[in-house]
Amino acid sequence: MMPERADPIDKRSRPATLRDVAQLAGVSIATVSKSLNGRDHVRPETRERVLRAAEKLNFAPNSLAQGLLTGRTGTVGLLTSDMEGRFSLPVMMGAEDAFGTGSTSVFLCDARGDAIREQHHIRALLGRRVDGLIVVGDKTDPRPSLGHAFPVPIVYAYAPSDDPRDISVISDNVGAGSLAAEHVLSCGRRRIAYVSGDVTYAAARDRVEGAVQTLGAAGLELLGGEALYGAWTEEWGRGAIRTLLARFPDLDAVLCGSDQIARGALDALRESGRSVPSEVAVMAHDNWVPIATQARPPLSTIDMRLELVGRRAAELLFEAINGEGRGGIHSVATKLVTRGSTALV
Amino acid sequence: MMPERADPIDKRSRPATLRDVAQLAGVSIATVSKSLNGRDHVRPETRERVLRAAEKLNFAPNSLAQGLLTGRTGTVGLLTSDMEGRFSLPVMMGAEDAFGTGSTSVFLCDARGDAIREQHHIRALLGRRVDGLIVVGDKTDPRPSLGHAFPVPIVYAYAPSDDPRDISVISDNVGAGSLAAEHVLSCGRRRIAYVSGDVTYAAARDRVEGAVQTLGAAGLELLGGEALYGAWTEEWGRGAIRTLLARFPDLDAVLCGSDQIARGALDALRESGRSVPSEVAVMAHDNWVPIATQARPPLSTIDMRLELVGRRAAELLFEAINGEGRGGIHSVATKLVTRGSTALV
Repeated sequence: MMPERADPIDKRSRPATLRDVAQLAGVSIATVSKSLNGRDHVRPETRERVLRAAEKLNFAPNSLAQGLLTGRTGTVGLLTSDMEGRFSLPVMMGAEDAFGTGSTSVFLCDARGDAIREQHHIRALLGRRVDGLIVVGDKTDPRPSLGHAFPVPIVYAYAPSDDPRDISVISDNVGAGSLAAEHVLSCGRRRIAYVSGDVTYAAARDRVEGAVQTLGAAGLELLGGEALYGAWTEEWGRGAIRTLLARFPDLDAVLCGSDQIARGALDALRESGRSVPSEVAVMAHDNWVPIATQARPPLSTIDMRLELVGRRAAELLFEAINGEGRGGIHSVATKLVTRGSTALV
Repeated sequence: MMPERADPIDKRSRPATLRDVAQLAGVSIATVSKSLNGRDHVRPETRERVLRAAEKLNFAPNSLAQGLLTGRTGTVGLLTSDMEGRFSLPVMMGAEDAFGTGSTSVFLCDARGDAIREQHHIRALLGRRVDGLIVVGDKTDPRPSLGHAFPVPIVYAYAPSDDPRDISVISDNVGAGSLAAEHVLSCGRRRIAYVSGDVTYAAARDRVEGAVQTLGAAGLELLGGEALYGAWTEEWGRGAIRTLLARFPDLDAVLCGSDQIARGALDALRESGRSVPSEVAVMAHDNWVPIATQARPPLSTIDMRLELVGRRAAELLFEAINGEGRGGIHSVATKLVTRGSTALV
């Protein structure tokens, strides 16, 4: 489909003005202004006509000028170091939903975990007079605070700031570990191992801690007395399961630190002739959909509710913009997602 | 680590000004201005001192005011509908690298494939006076042109515009199919099947077309005379392989439309007792690292070089900003990545 168009590509038109919109809508400039800012009374039919004209002309009000008048630009910057986007994009979508489309735009910049790049983007965003910043980490460990010498509030999401006076929103990793352990207990399992990822990640240790607490309350401990830590990979999941089966042939459940580790665990169990879930239940973490749903059987897992993290970050940022900043770490509860790898038997 | 900080969170400082920077650096305001805009001669030591002071104060020059003077804001908007980020984030990184950090910032907005959201973000970006827009699709099919009534140039990346006068940059999918077929031919394979994804995707059909052309030039055709189309999932990869093995037990290579399909193919081959690559070579597409490298054996695949797509898009956008827009579809060659699933035997 190649519809005829009037403007050749090399002859760009100038930006539309209030006057252009007024002319097309057949109203005064004042009426256009009132219709667009919504602060004064305009007849609904008139407002509709103005909005259509503005849309038709791709009219972009000079947001900065508006911002200078109202003190708001309706723009929030999101600075991320997670360039796979697995964490930052759901957080971004949640934040946009909380702010409400049509009122606030979220602009994402990638810092790639590089402090110089981060400073550059912060300056670019501040130069565009954003109303606030959301900073998303690439892992859940506390990150250095950006300090307080900024003209706008900052909320840290996914990775908390190391300064407790900053506003941070995280997923509850200890709670996630508890939830996973509770679920396999409720499936009647008692001989439970934990295969985790990199021990240097606070999230890995927190999830294990939650599971250990919950098992302890049931009078149990992890098989072998502690979790096995390794890489965040399928390969490690396979290797860890082989080790566990050699030491604990009557293992009846494995809690895994990620969906990828759990995929490896499933493969190694199948190849050892163990049936999942009838002999061994496998519980994962992340709910990374292409990994979790394509496993055989599909993985029961913990969803980190990253969109809710983004939504909460947006709400806290909005409060801070209005002068009601609440420093500290705000924690979002995770959610159990059951699929075929843990069903009751 | 919680270092002492001077400013309480609820008492934000005002933005730093040129005067603040001048005071801290011990120079005149004019020298600060000259040092920051780089247009006049300043002694390197002085410039260094000014830059450090600006950094220390988080000084953000009023970019819009600068933009009005120079006609540039040093900001590019990237509008994406790919909310997994698998395609848009590498494109974004490539574009930033091409523009050069420190000179241009790329702001990403998510449109979620929704035209109203898209219009809203475009208005927000234009309101911030971006110098240009890059629009990234969520699949490779041509997408509707945004038209030419914008004050800045637009480049379409990954998914081309349906208007040939627009500037589009895509991965060469026909070439990707040829590359995959050439590689298995060079591995000595002759009985080659193709398991593709959704037939409604132009990319799926283009990759198959490239393979068919290359096999044809070698006097061969696909096993069964045509590709098998299905879902972009491991499950489909497994099912398709079972079907193929029943019909063509002497199959010696499978070209797959994605890494996920290839993962399924590997599992089904293993479970049918076929050795990969000695009996059957498996060739994938995407080079989605967590999927491709964790397969057993790791997948030989085609890398779409999305960062190069982003880099090319940035270059074309830069040319267009300078009034030298080159409409049409610009194609970026893909790259063969060999791993264990296709080694020569």
